[in-house]
Amino acid sequence: MTVYTDLPAQHDHTPSYTAHLGQPTGALVPIRLRTTLPVTQVSVKLVRVGEIETHPAEEVPAPANETRPGRWFEFLLPVHSAAVRYSWLLELPDDHLNLTMSGLHHVRRPFRDWFQYLSGYQAPEWAWESVFYQIFPDRFRNGDPSVSVQTGEYQYNGRDVFQVPWTTAPDWNGDIHGHYGGDLSGITEQLPYLTELGINALWLTPIFESPSNHRYDITDYRRIDPHLGGQAAFDRLIGAAAQQGVRVVLDGVFNHVGNENALFKAALASEDAPERSMFTWRSDHPLPYHAFFDVPTLPKIDYASLEARNEFWDGEEGVVRHWLRQGIAGWRLDVAHMMGVNGTDDDNLDLHRALKTAAREERADAYVFGERFFDPERALQGGGEDGAMNYHGFGLPVMQWLSGQSYTLRPSRLNGGEVVELLWDAYHALPPQMALNMFNLLDSHDVPRALYRLGQDRVRLRAAVTLLMGYPGVPCLYYGTEIGLSQTEPAAMPFCRAPMPWPDQGGTPDQWDDRLRQDVQRLIRLRRETPALQRGSLRFLLAEDDAIGYVRELDGVRVAVLASRDSRETPTTLTLPDGDWRDALSGEPVGSGTVQLRLAGGRVLIQS
Amino acid sequence: MTVYTDLPAQHDHTPSYTAHLGQPTGALVPIRLRTTLPVTQVSVKLVRVGEIETHPAEEVPAPANETRPGRWFEFLLPVHSAAVRYSWLLELPDDHLNLTMSGLHHVRRPFRDWFQYLSGYQAPEWAWESVFYQIFPDRFRNGDPSVSVQTGEYQYNGRDVFQVPWTTAPDWNGDIHGHYGGDLSGITEQLPYLTELGINALWLTPIFESPSNHRYDITDYRRIDPHLGGQAAFDRLIGAAAQQGVRVVLDGVFNHVGNENALFKAALASEDAPERSMFTWRSDHPLPYHAFFDVPTLPKIDYASLEARNEFWDGEEGVVRHWLRQGIAGWRLDVAHMMGVNGTDDDNLDLHRALKTAAREERADAYVFGERFFDPERALQGGGEDGAMNYHGFGLPVMQWLSGQSYTLRPSRLNGGEVVELLWDAYHALPPQMALNMFNLLDSHDVPRALYRLGQDRVRLRAAVTLLMGYPGVPCLYYGTEIGLSQTEPAAMPFCRAPMPWPDQGGTPDQWDDRLRQDVQRLIRLRRETPALQRGSLRFLLAEDDAIGYVRELDGVRVAVLASRDSRETPTTLTLPDGDWRDALSGEPVGSGTVQLRLAGGRVLIQS
Repeated sequence: MTVYTDLPAQHDHTPSYTAHLGQPTGALVPIRLRTTLPVTQVSVKLVRVGEIETHPAEEVPAPANETRPGRWFEFLLPVHSAAVRYSWLLELPDDHLNLTMSGLHHVRRPFRDWFQYLSGYQAPEWAWESVFYQIFPDRFRNGDPSVSVQTGEYQYNGRDVFQVPWTTAPDWNGDIHGHYGGDLSGITEQLPYLTELGINALWLTPIFESPSNHRYDITDYRRIDPHLGGQAAFDRLIGAAAQQGVRVVLDGVFNHVGNENALFKAALASEDAPERSMFTWRSDHPLPYHAFFDVPTLPKIDYASLEARNEFWDGEEGVVRHWLRQGIAGWRLDVAHMMGVNGTDDDNLDLHRALKTAAREERADAYVFGERFFDPERALQGGGEDGAMNYHGFGLPVMQWLSGQSYTLRPSRLNGGEVVELLWDAYHALPPQMALNMFNLLDSHDVPRALYRLGQDRVRLRAAVTLLMGYPGVPCLYYGTEIGLSQTEPAAMPFCRAPMPWPDQGGTPDQWDDRLRQDVQRLIRLRRETPALQRGSLRFLLAEDDAIGYVRELDGVRVAVLASRDSRETPTTLTLPDGDWRDALSGEPVGSGTVQLRLAGGRVLIQS
Repeated sequence: MTVYTDLPAQHDHTPSYTAHLGQPTGALVPIRLRTTLPVTQVSVKLVRVGEIETHPAEEVPAPANETRPGRWFEFLLPVHSAAVRYSWLLELPDDHLNLTMSGLHHVRRPFRDWFQYLSGYQAPEWAWESVFYQIFPDRFRNGDPSVSVQTGEYQYNGRDVFQVPWTTAPDWNGDIHGHYGGDLSGITEQLPYLTELGINALWLTPIFESPSNHRYDITDYRRIDPHLGGQAAFDRLIGAAAQQGVRVVLDGVFNHVGNENALFKAALASEDAPERSMFTWRSDHPLPYHAFFDVPTLPKIDYASLEARNEFWDGEEGVVRHWLRQGIAGWRLDVAHMMGVNGTDDDNLDLHRALKTAAREERADAYVFGERFFDPERALQGGGEDGAMNYHGFGLPVMQWLSGQSYTLRPSRLNGGEVVELLWDAYHALPPQMALNMFNLLDSHDVPRALYRLGQDRVRLRAAVTLLMGYPGVPCLYYGTEIGLSQTEPAAMPFCRAPMPWPDQGGTPDQWDDRLRQDVQRLIRLRRETPALQRGSLRFLLAEDDAIGYVRELDGVRVAVLASRDSRETPTTLTLPDGDWRDALSGEPVGSGTVQLRLAGGRVLIQS
C-alpha cells in the first residue's frame, strides 16, 4: 500500500501552491511547486486541443514566512477551457519524474491522475466551514402536538395512518404509516442544543406535504406539510436558524413524485392532460408508468418534458427556485443518479447542470449536492452538482472497516490498506473543490446506525467521528449520533429512524450519553476552528490493517487525523512527518518522527 | 506492486467466462465465474438507470474438458444499454468480496474498475489475428525509379524538393524536401519478403498526393501520389496484397490538409467561397486561420462545417468511404485527438462516432484506430474508434523501461513495477474488445528507433519484440526493425526514417541482421499460431525492477510472456502459475512452481 505523505515534491490546490481557484477562462493563474529534489529543470504539462504542451516553470523565491524546506517553481497556468488538466515534469541529472495527484512517477500517468483546474467555478465555501446535522423531521422532536398526524386521520395506499408514541421503537408495521409527530417547531426549539453542539447547518429530509412518515412521496412541492407545522413553522425555523447562524438545506425529491400529487393525478386521469408528458407511460408492463423501483406510489418524472423541467427548476416559479427564495441554503438531491428522460437516467448530467444553474441564479452560494450512493466521479466535473453524499469515497468503506461488515450487514475482513487505497482513489480523481464539497457521513436514514454497526462500541464510534470531522468534504452527523442513539434490529429502515430520546420527552438517562456528546462537541469545535481541516490538502500517513490516518495541510499548518479500530489500549507505531506534534484536543506533546500512540477512539495531532 | 495472476476467483472476456461478446441490446448473455473460494453465494451487480442491482448467480457444472480447479457460477447478463458495467459479489462464511477488473477487493471499487460489456459492438477481429508492418513509403523500397521525385521538380514552401540517394542517412536538410524515391511498386515487390516474415497487414503512412516526403500535407485526398506510382500502382498493390493474404490500412489525415489543397486554396481565395466554412478563420493571430501547431502549411479542418464532414466521411463520396470501396481494410487516423470544431478538439468523440459509422457502412470489418499519443481511455468506449495507437499503455512505458530513457531521450530510472502498474491501469479500464484492438508498437516514424534507444543492444530489442508479440492488442513492427535498422543521431525525425537497406539497393551486410530477422519471424509465427495471444485475457506475473512478465489465457491454454532488460545471463527467480511449463519456441521444459529462468532477450512459455 502506497502512503503518500512527505513526497519530495509538492503541489496541491491550497494557496501556497495554487494562487486562486475557479478563475474564469482566459485567466493566468500562478501555480507553484516546492521540491527538495536536485532538479535541473521544472516544467508544466497541460492538455490543450487534445495535445500535451510542455512549458518551463521559473524558479521563484520561497514565499515569505515559509519554513518548509525546498526550492520553489512557478508557472502561470492558462485557464483555456472549463477544466484544465496539468502535471509537473521534474528533470534530474539522471532521471525525470512526473508529479500528478497520484504522486511522483517515472511514467506519464493517465489523465484521470492529473491535476485539474476548474474554470469559472465558484464553490459554496460556507459549506466547507460547516458541520451539518441530518434531521428526519418525524423523529427529531415534537414541538407542537396540535399538528401531529392523528390515528386514522387519513389512509395511504389503502391503509390507515396512525400515531406512534415517542418512546416506542420503530418496527415494520409503522415503516410508512406510523407517525411519531416530530415537526419543525421541535427543530426550532432545539436550535440552541444544536448550536451548542457546534452544528451550523441542517439537512432536513423532505418536509413538503406527503402521506408517509418519510415524505419522499410528495403531494405538493410548494406546501410545507401541515403535520410539520406548515408554512408558518417553516418561516419561524428559517428565521431562528438565520439568527443563530444555522443554514438549512432541503431534500429535493426530483426523480419521482408521490401518487397523490396533483400533477400525477391529472396525468393519470386523461391521456390528453398537459401533465401527461411529465411521466413515462408504457404498455409492456403491469404498471403502466415508470416508477422508482416499480413502486406504484412513486411515479418517475420524465425530464424529456419541458413542463417537468419548468415545474422543478427552469420555470420562474420552479420548485428549486421557490424555496431558495424563501431562505434555504441549498438542496440535497434525492437519488440524483436516477434522474433522466424516458424512464431512464439518460441526460442525467445535462439535467443536473440545468438544475444547478437555476439554483445559483437564485442564490450565488447555493450548495447543491446529490445523493449518489455509488461512485459519483463522472457526475462531479464541475458542471452539475457541487458534490455528492460521500458514501462511495468515505462513509461506506470507513464504516465497513471499523465495523467488520458492509452496510447490508454482510461480514467483511476489510483492512485499513484497502480502505486508504479506495479513499485515495476517490479523492484524487475529483477536481479539488468537488472533493472539498463532498458531503461526508457515517450513516443516515438509509443505512443502519453507526453505533449499531459498531456493536454499540462508543470507542470505535469516536474513532469514526474523528475521521469524519477531519476528512476533506463537509461532515454531517445523523441526528442522535452524538448522544449514542442506536438501534436493535439488524436492518436499515425502519430501525435506524428511532426518535431522539429527549429527557423531557420520555428518553431515559441510559439513552443519552453526555460524555460522548461532549467528545463529539470537541471534535466539531476543532473542525470549525481549523481551516486546514476545512480546506487543506490531503495525504495519507497510515494504512495498517487496524489503523489508518491522514494529514491535512494548509499554508504550512499540518494536522494529522488518526484512528484505530482496535478499542483496546494497544499503541500503534507510526512515523509522523517532519516537525514536532501535539494532541490537538489536549495540547499534550506527542513527539516527532517514529512514535507509539494509542489511536483507539481516534486522535487529532497538530504540528506545533 | 500488486501482481494479478492466479486469483482464487476468475472472470474475463474469454469464452470460458463470457459466452459472446458484443450482443445487441436486449440480449441475455451467459457470464460465468470460477472460484476456489468457499463461497456460500455468488451474485452479479450491474448498473441500470444509475442504480446498482444485485442478482444471484447459479452454480453450474464445470464446462466439459475443464481441468482448472474450482466451482462455476453463471448469470444471464441483461444487455440493457450500450455499455453494461458489472461486478461479482462473493459471499463467504465470514467475509465477502467484490471481483472487478482490478481484482478481488473487500470494498466496492469505482465504476472504472468494473467489467464492461459493450452492446452491439462488432470488433474487427481479423486485426487480432494480424501482425502489422508500418511502412513510410518514401523509405521502404524504390520499385519504379521512373516515377521518383526529381531534384528541382517542384518547390514546396518556397524551396526546391530534391532526390536523396538511397544509401544516404537522413539529415535535417532533407527532413521535408528530401525524397528517397520509395514507392508502392517497391512494397508490392517485397510482399513475399513480408509474408515470409509473417506479416499479414500493412499500415502505410500517407500515400495521397502531397508535396513533402512524409505526405501529411495532402493536396488531393482522392489521388494516389504519382510519385508513388499513382492509382495503377495502388491497384496492383491492393490486388497482390489480397492474393497474399495481406490487408492494407491507410493513414487518414483528417485534422488538417496541406496548404496546396484545392479546398484550402479556394477558401483562402475568397471569403464567399463555399469551402470557406471548412477552415477556422481568426483575426487575433498573425496566421489568419487555425493550423496544426500553427504551421501555416497545415490548415486545420473545422468540422462545425457540414461540408467538411461530407468531404471526409459523411458524403457518399467521402474520403473515408472512397478508399474503403477500393479495397483498403481500415484507417489509422492521424492526430485523432486533435480533430474538432472551431479550431479546437470540441465534439471530438461525436466526430469519431460519425467517422466510424461511415467506415463500417462501407466495410463491416473496417479497422479504425486513432493516433492518440496520450491516454485514450475517454475515447475508447465503443462508439468511436476501435482502438488507438498504444503509446500510452504499452509502447512508451515499455520502451522507457527497457532503454532507461523517455522517447524524448530524457534519462529515466523507471523500474518494472511502475511499468506493470501503468500497463495494467491502461488495460483494465478499457472494454475488452477495445483492449484487444489497441495498436501496439515499440516505435514509429514519430519517435526514435527502438534499437537506437536500446543502445543498439539486440538482446534487449528481442525482449521488446517478445513483449510486443505477446501483448493484448494488435502488434505492429516499424519497417526494418526486424533486420536491425537503426539511427545514429539523438532525435526522432528525420533520423528514425532511414531507408530500408535492401542488399540489392546498396545495403551492406552489417545493416542486415538475418539472425535477428529469424528471431522476429519466430515470434511473429508464434503470435499468429497462438489464439491465446490474439484474444486471451491478461494478468501480470512478474514486476521486478529489471524483469516483467504477464500471462495470456484462453480456454484453459496459458502462455507466459517474460522479459528482462538485463542483457547479461543473470537468471530471474519467479513463480509460475500452477502446471508444467515449456518454452514455446524451443519446446524445452522449464518446470513448474518457483523457477530460475534467463529472461534476457525475452521468453515465451506455454503450459504443456
